[in-house]
Amino acid sequence: MTVLNLGVADFARPLSDAETLDWRPPGDGDPGRAWRLARLMSGSAAARIDAANRTAMERVLAAQPVLVDIALHARDVWPDLGRRLLHAGPPIPWQKMCAPMQGAAIGAVIYEGWAEDAKAAEALLASGAVPMSPCHDRAAVGPMAGIVSSSMPLWVARNADRGNLAYTNFSEGIGRVLRFGANGPDVIERLRWVERVLAPGLKAALARIPGGVNLKSIQSQALLMGDEVHSRNAAATMLFLQQIAAPLFECSIPAADKSAIHGFIAATGQFFLNLSMVAAKAIMDAGHGVADASLVTAMARNGVNVGIRVSGLGQAWFEAPAGMPDGLYFPGFKPGDANPDLGDSAITETAGYGGFSLAASPALVQLVGGTVEAAFAASREMLHITLGRNPAMTIPALDFGGAPIGIDPRKVVDSGIRPIITTGMAHRQAGIGQVGAGIVRAPMGCFLGAIDALAAKLGVA
Amino acid sequence: MTVLNLGVADFARPLSDAETLDWRPPGDGDPGRAWRLARLMSGSAAARIDAANRTAMERVLAAQPVLVDIALHARDVWPDLGRRLLHAGPPIPWQKMCAPMQGAAIGAVIYEGWAEDAKAAEALLASGAVPMSPCHDRAAVGPMAGIVSSSMPLWVARNADRGNLAYTNFSEGIGRVLRFGANGPDVIERLRWVERVLAPGLKAALARIPGGVNLKSIQSQALLMGDEVHSRNAAATMLFLQQIAAPLFECSIPAADKSAIHGFIAATGQFFLNLSMVAAKAIMDAGHGVADASLVTAMARNGVNVGIRVSGLGQAWFEAPAGMPDGLYFPGFKPGDANPDLGDSAITETAGYGGFSLAASPALVQLVGGTVEAAFAASREMLHITLGRNPAMTIPALDFGGAPIGIDPRKVVDSGIRPIITTGMAHRQAGIGQVGAGIVRAPMGCFLGAIDALAAKLGVA
Repeated sequence: MTVLNLGVADFARPLSDAETLDWRPPGDGDPGRAWRLARLMSGSAAARIDAANRTAMERVLAAQPVLVDIALHARDVWPDLGRRLLHAGPPIPWQKMCAPMQGAAIGAVIYEGWAEDAKAAEALLASGAVPMSPCHDRAAVGPMAGIVSSSMPLWVARNADRGNLAYTNFSEGIGRVLRFGANGPDVIERLRWVERVLAPGLKAALARIPGGVNLKSIQSQALLMGDEVHSRNAAATMLFLQQIAAPLFECSIPAADKSAIHGFIAATGQFFLNLSMVAAKAIMDAGHGVADASLVTAMARNGVNVGIRVSGLGQAWFEAPAGMPDGLYFPGFKPGDANPDLGDSAITETAGYGGFSLAASPALVQLVGGTVEAAFAASREMLHITLGRNPAMTIPALDFGGAPIGIDPRKVVDSGIRPIITTGMAHRQAGIGQVGAGIVRAPMGCFLGAIDALAAKLGVA
Repeated sequence: MTVLNLGVADFARPLSDAETLDWRPPGDGDPGRAWRLARLMSGSAAARIDAANRTAMERVLAAQPVLVDIALHARDVWPDLGRRLLHAGPPIPWQKMCAPMQGAAIGAVIYEGWAEDAKAAEALLASGAVPMSPCHDRAAVGPMAGIVSSSMPLWVARNADRGNLAYTNFSEGIGRVLRFGANGPDVIERLRWVERVLAPGLKAALARIPGGVNLKSIQSQALLMGDEVHSRNAAATMLFLQQIAAPLFECSIPAADKSAIHGFIAATGQFFLNLSMVAAKAIMDAGHGVADASLVTAMARNGVNVGIRVSGLGQAWFEAPAGMPDGLYFPGFKPGDANPDLGDSAITETAGYGGFSLAASPALVQLVGGTVEAAFAASREMLHITLGRNPAMTIPALDFGGAPIGIDPRKVVDSGIRPIITTGMAHRQAGIGQVGAGIVRAPMGCFLGAIDALAAKLGVA
């Protein structure tokens, strides 16, 4: 694998319409911030940031996320979890949550048996007796509402390079699902099947694969097969199934369960999404906590706000209101039906997949709208706001150049180019489900906040 | 699925270097032929040909190749086969065969037990006691040497639209294999495993899939996943494995065989090539035998000559010397090592896959050389010599336009643009194996011969 350098030609192209329309003066029109940004980009403060970013990016590029285990219940990983629910995005109290997230929380309370029906569950949640906090606070990620509760099984990924662990919940398949806020009896029944059949079966199968399943390798192969491993995981799911099928059928669970599990994965084109997310979380956590580094290590949405975390700025979230995805709606739905941007799945973009690798997935434009040329342009545009390219993520349509990886808030604010995220769209009411898929950009406010905090930390007043 | 028309912009582009260099006057410089060609392209003869081509293309586009069965031995399909060997390409006597094809024939004779060693096998073959004829004469196709003998199992595909059947042999996997002319004990042992384990196991699995496996559907999906389903079948092989895995593990063959078969397919990225070929054969045979049609229904190479068949010209082959592929060599091999173009696999190009769908497979340029832009240009160029586009074969990089399908010899001779074929390269000596992969163009002579025969048949003197 050769590291390809970005040639001059890539930068020489004219700005796209989107960039032109989105352009704002550096610092978002605030002269004081523009001056602070200038000093974060050149001089001694910049040198400190750049050096820290090099360290952080080395760790990110060296990360080797491997699927090593399944925890049959989240409480096995976190004995202190109790009745706490984890959710997608930055922290948000029950009262301010969007309807799909509230719907999913209600479903989790019913699933756990803490309440008998939705009304009782809602009352319990409103009472404050069910504490809630971000998945990200426990090295975890969850798609859409991202609700994780005590009895749910978890995938466990380990970064073989540095040993850090990451966690995610299981795909519930397609149709009415908790992650989109549905919580009817069929949804609860599906969650129980995931807990009692899917997770134990796959745990037994995974135990038969020495060393586990190399998730980064699957992601790299899938990028050559039309996936960007966020909103399209068709090839990645097959690559995973190809590895797990024989161990699954060879292990000692009931034969009917083997066939049911294999069929479930084969029928769920986005099955690998959760695994792509946990791989991305293991990768980006490797780059977190480097003093002075401006690298964005998490980007997550709770359906109300988008929050980012920055390597050198600890556990702080820098938040701004979530945008509305622009995309294609399933038959029977229309633009006003969608909830604002939701879910931890933007961890994939944080790690250079998804919108940053959109050029790898022209097939995705059939789902999210737009043109193939725009998909190619998206990846090229993201090169302007990233710290490097990933030689393990080659994109055929970019002549096998590496995907852009490592968002630098300084570059985002300086260029006015906001990160592109590919995403599913949830109905704004709980219990209805997915209404389409599209593209959204992270709000500038997150990056402005990060710049201000970086300036304060480095004494650039 | 929408039929996309080719826009004016596609034709407005300047000719590529390759086209410019290859350009010759219409009729290949022969004024008499140029005049005959002109009358085959306009006027009453042209009207007859065009109408016949419409019928042939309707049948081709409507074809639905389905994998319906496995014949455990070729003699079960053809009771008259006896000691006859089938081979790739147009007819060729033993003495004139290229070394890889001779090596494969020797291996087949040893495998059948008709001779004890290579020397005795060669003597038997030279004696004329082993008749040989093209796979294509029995609605069959075989990659590279394409040798099929009495005891070898066959895949059976059926065109659900018109009921015609097609056959192909099994992939032997990677390494030293008969199809590249190897014939040592390990090769013979592998053939026996294919006969005794692989084929019966997959036959039992296939029997559990009601209606069989829709091969066209796999090809269509694979085109969205970076395959052109000739020289790259990575996604197609996984899509097939995903369908066959559960029935395989659920059927009643020994457990060790199940795992061995699954592992063999998973480790053989080109496993689907034979299935892609038999699908293409079933598709193109549907368009064969339409009086006056100029549609090319077969394009095949025996390593010495390339031959084509034309829908309205019966079983005649129009032949010309095979070209040398231009590509990348595996470590330890160099250009002089390769045999001229070999194998029936160009049936995929005849059906619009392979070189005609190269724009679907930028990842293939890593294997065969060239640039991604050249891969896109290849498919666009083939639009100039084909009768239509296949709405079931959408190519993302062509903005989801259908792949070019249906070679018209009139357009080939008139434009001087020869069909592009993606191909593996065999060592020119028997028994060594694959030396690389590349791109080759079918020789103009085949199409000149077809034009002359068409003119004679239609009374255009």
